[in-house]
Amino acid sequence: MSETCVLVLDDDPPPRLDRLSGRARVVHADEKSLAERLPEADVLLVWDFLSSAVRDAWPGSGARPGWVHTPSAGVDKLLPELADSDVLITNARGVFDQPIAEYVAGLVLAMAKDFPGSWELQRERHWRHRETLRVGGTRAVVVGSGPIGRRIGRTLMALGVSVDLVGRTERNTDPEFGRVHGNGALDTLLGEADWVVCVAPLTEASRGMFDSAAFSRMKPSARFINVGRGQHVVEEDLVAALREQRIGGAALDVFREEPLPSDSELWQVPGLLVSPHMSGDTIGWRDDLAEQFLDNFDRWSAGEPLMNVVDKTLGYVPAS
Amino acid sequence: MSETCVLVLDDDPPPRLDRLSGRARVVHADEKSLAERLPEADVLLVWDFLSSAVRDAWPGSGARPGWVHTPSAGVDKLLPELADSDVLITNARGVFDQPIAEYVAGLVLAMAKDFPGSWELQRERHWRHRETLRVGGTRAVVVGSGPIGRRIGRTLMALGVSVDLVGRTERNTDPEFGRVHGNGALDTLLGEADWVVCVAPLTEASRGMFDSAAFSRMKPSARFINVGRGQHVVEEDLVAALREQRIGGAALDVFREEPLPSDSELWQVPGLLVSPHMSGDTIGWRDDLAEQFLDNFDRWSAGEPLMNVVDKTLGYVPAS
Repeated sequence: MSETCVLVLDDDPPPRLDRLSGRARVVHADEKSLAERLPEADVLLVWDFLSSAVRDAWPGSGARPGWVHTPSAGVDKLLPELADSDVLITNARGVFDQPIAEYVAGLVLAMAKDFPGSWELQRERHWRHRETLRVGGTRAVVVGSGPIGRRIGRTLMALGVSVDLVGRTERNTDPEFGRVHGNGALDTLLGEADWVVCVAPLTEASRGMFDSAAFSRMKPSARFINVGRGQHVVEEDLVAALREQRIGGAALDVFREEPLPSDSELWQVPGLLVSPHMSGDTIGWRDDLAEQFLDNFDRWSAGEPLMNVVDKTLGYVPAS
Repeated sequence: MSETCVLVLDDDPPPRLDRLSGRARVVHADEKSLAERLPEADVLLVWDFLSSAVRDAWPGSGARPGWVHTPSAGVDKLLPELADSDVLITNARGVFDQPIAEYVAGLVLAMAKDFPGSWELQRERHWRHRETLRVGGTRAVVVGSGPIGRRIGRTLMALGVSVDLVGRTERNTDPEFGRVHGNGALDTLLGEADWVVCVAPLTEASRGMFDSAAFSRMKPSARFINVGRGQHVVEEDLVAALREQRIGGAALDVFREEPLPSDSELWQVPGLLVSPHMSGDTIGWRDDLAEQFLDNFDRWSAGEPLMNVVDKTLGYVPAS
């Protein structure tokens, strides 16, 4: 093949691909045509990163691209199917760190200050003063010690929150957090936290980790925030914990089924805030994500090592 | 008088006054009985700090207390009437700094991430992804350079916001902010800010400062937050600026008339968030405020200088 073929799985085409002109042939596919197009692709850009079409099409027949890039932090729409091939997977590590950290800090403050309650009262034209929580001096446990989890931790610490970070591997000499706890410490930490934030990669080990047992370990005042993946949470168990007031509240930005169906009970659970998988998506994010892919394409073309190569066994980019 | 008399203007009695037992006689008054009780008081604790009864009763006839304490940051319910007497006024400087800074940071993040929009869509069971603002890299102007304004500034800076602080007096060697702008710089700064936060003391100079002219100087995307006093804002002008989309949004925690009457148009202006004067009021605040008064009472009893003495000409406690 004389010219590199970049196959893009998308509904909406990505911006900035003119940077490829003269250097690659760009072919677009949707979920239906993906399998048919794959054999001609050298590179696959999974622009529609919420689609499961790549897993469904893999391995399939014919040649496979040598490099697959997903403009997301999570790679759970590629694994485990792609793990057994020698394809390189890269992700959007870095782009979402600050936006998601701001989003989580905003949720913490909004819940502490009861903005949902104030705006509900506003609709009722009802003046009712309440006393609210001071955030400084509270404790958070952040499950997920990758760049997003670390950024969340730093941002909460800047607000005076004590942060315990939980990762796969315990480390006792972390330059920023002093220590990163291993998963074994989680049960104890859950009982001490005012805020429990899930931003772990979705793996077989983390799937369903926030279940009835986990919610039972939390304080009745604790709030749970999920900006990881919907599959981290046993949604029925969360609903029960909220309805029985075993925890103080929750905010979900991700769901087992997305878009969340309009008849889902999750829309209307007391103390549960719902948002449509947007915590990382700030104005200009599509440009940032496209540029990040294109920068990596420059490396690919030059035969240089790619940035943000995912460890397909772990399911994320290991810390360097 | 053999025993000190502490007169307390209240609806609800303050906590912790048992610390005075054996050292002072505590007398309670409401708005109606205040004038009659004042002559016997050595100390007046204006626990009901939103009441204008002290201004109304001043100077009146008979002896006046030598010390008046208000458990609020603002002293606009005492001035100008008390300015002409030799009474000492003290306030609650310090207690509200962190809670209000957290509240403002929460509002900034909530508006940037469009939490109001998400929770409106949640009620409609409608999944609609939007792109939101990145807060880091935006610019804020904080009008008010006392401890609350400074704490707001520091908290926003910790979120990556560039902060310009505006005070009565320009200072070019501020240890934290580099420079504190004088009021003369405000017009220019308003045109550059993404966030305009009012936390100034209410004085004749600041009354009505946020009027049509001020809103016209702001960017169409700018958001205005008032945690100062309602009288800082010409509410009709703010409503017009919001309705005509001359600014991007606003959040008011204080109002010209409080409680905000249920028929006020302010409850239902597009882009306007309303809360019931609670930004500083975290759980335990009444205890903190009572302790602060009692600590000052210890000084008063011992003949020591009081903390947080208000400059009655300026209308606030000057920086030491």
